[in-house]
Amino acid sequence: MRICTKCTMAFMGANPNSYISLTCNINKLENNLKLLFSTPPPSSLFSSKLRSITRKASIFTRSVAENDVVTSQVEVPSSNSITKHHQSPFSGLEEVMTGYMFGKKKATEVAHAVWKNVVRKGDLVIDATCGNGYDTLALLRLIADDACRGRVFAMDLQKDALESTSSLLDRSVTADEKKQVELYSMCHTRMEELVPKGDAVRLVAFNLGYLPGGDKKIKTESETTLLALDAAKKIVAPGGLISILAYVGHSGGREEFEKVQSFAAELPIDNWVCCKLQMLNRPLAPVLVLLSKNK
Amino acid sequence: MRICTKCTMAFMGANPNSYISLTCNINKLENNLKLLFSTPPPSSLFSSKLRSITRKASIFTRSVAENDVVTSQVEVPSSNSITKHHQSPFSGLEEVMTGYMFGKKKATEVAHAVWKNVVRKGDLVIDATCGNGYDTLALLRLIADDACRGRVFAMDLQKDALESTSSLLDRSVTADEKKQVELYSMCHTRMEELVPKGDAVRLVAFNLGYLPGGDKKIKTESETTLLALDAAKKIVAPGGLISILAYVGHSGGREEFEKVQSFAAELPIDNWVCCKLQMLNRPLAPVLVLLSKNK
Repeated sequence: MRICTKCTMAFMGANPNSYISLTCNINKLENNLKLLFSTPPPSSLFSSKLRSITRKASIFTRSVAENDVVTSQVEVPSSNSITKHHQSPFSGLEEVMTGYMFGKKKATEVAHAVWKNVVRKGDLVIDATCGNGYDTLALLRLIADDACRGRVFAMDLQKDALESTSSLLDRSVTADEKKQVELYSMCHTRMEELVPKGDAVRLVAFNLGYLPGGDKKIKTESETTLLALDAAKKIVAPGGLISILAYVGHSGGREEFEKVQSFAAELPIDNWVCCKLQMLNRPLAPVLVLLSKNK
Repeated sequence: MRICTKCTMAFMGANPNSYISLTCNINKLENNLKLLFSTPPPSSLFSSKLRSITRKASIFTRSVAENDVVTSQVEVPSSNSITKHHQSPFSGLEEVMTGYMFGKKKATEVAHAVWKNVVRKGDLVIDATCGNGYDTLALLRLIADDACRGRVFAMDLQKDALESTSSLLDRSVTADEKKQVELYSMCHTRMEELVPKGDAVRLVAFNLGYLPGGDKKIKTESETTLLALDAAKKIVAPGGLISILAYVGHSGGREEFEKVQSFAAELPIDNWVCCKLQMLNRPLAPVLVLLSKNK
């Protein structure tokens, strides 16, 4: 495998005259575009759309890497974090939503793609039900920055869950990155206690039900879930999100989902936009509930 | 206003040394990327992702044109259809979904953004309830191509609706483009009669309820809506979509929505993926129901 001389990322093409990675090509385009709009920049729209183009290109790079030429990005020696970030499991919401509509993507993936549009590097976020750690890891990848300003508070009542999460993080991120996650063996109804006064929480994520692979009798319960949602409502910042993936296939699951739905229905429309994405001909499929707090 | 010497589109920058439009810059990037992956192309993923990047860039061009420097694209003389396509009302699904979550975008806009990911130039699509023509126009912009292969069959029982749609098209598209729309004053339960045998229908769009600005007593009814859905189910091609925007605020609206929901719930999971996007704390907000037929 050849390496781009500019950024040390894998060069994935077959043209022997061009040893420049796609990322570098995109950077070149960015510079061209910046030049084109040199004085004055048209608006902040410019930078946000440019980010969008670059993000798409980044997803593309990753997809090609995962599916085609490069089998594993970790083969590439790198002293910076570019390579690591390309291991992120995130896809764009457009791609994921279309996939969900055609049964190719799961509600979890939609949730992750939604988070990507809300959470920024350096944010404080809470995983209220860390389970086996996949959401914690996904959130870490969104908030992690070199300055280590971001924080993921990951909570679970079950020690197995915290150990599983810790182990997943050990296998997936550097020790420095892992430091940005704080694991708490406590009930998520107490999440307010974790947040330093005045700190803004961008996202609280709930993945309800039982621990996959664990004891199915130990699961989130309607009463405590509602208390935890009430806590989340208080601490989430304007422009932030409470994301709930509700499972309706297990005993008590549908009742819990109905409670979550009623909670959402009562949130005032002046401050909250509450919506759900639900399968209609798969009655046991999880339902994604999104509670967005207005700015 | 200056014009790009390559494509006659507006040059929107302020750099006096560069009279090249953003579209031309994007084309240049495309060529660079194609070169990068010259032999062999990594996969079909490449072209689809590239289209995605280009589409994003195109949205960006349009957004800048609409919001910042150029007040109206029709000022630009053009002998081809590039300028016209830049007037399209479509945004990307990522942007629209995030907007919907935060109350900035409507369910109609989500529907349009979803269609954009399903419908292709030259497709045959049906607007089952053309109303004032906004969906017909949106569909036309997705299917219209220079070869005039695409068709929108737009149906409505009310002559006012067809006249309103015709008038909107007159104001919005060229006579040649309008020819790709066929208006039918008939009940949408009869849509099968319109489709030539063997032709694939990519999308059937329903916007239920009454004609905005018209007589609110004349509206779609559960019984005929179900018959029309049954017809749509038969004619939509694999990989195609039935898109229903159901209004629940008017008399009979909720009952109609429940019927649509039951219809969707009964579609076999082997062939169909049926989902809905619904507000939870705005009980009268329209609900988007998407029925996707597996390939």
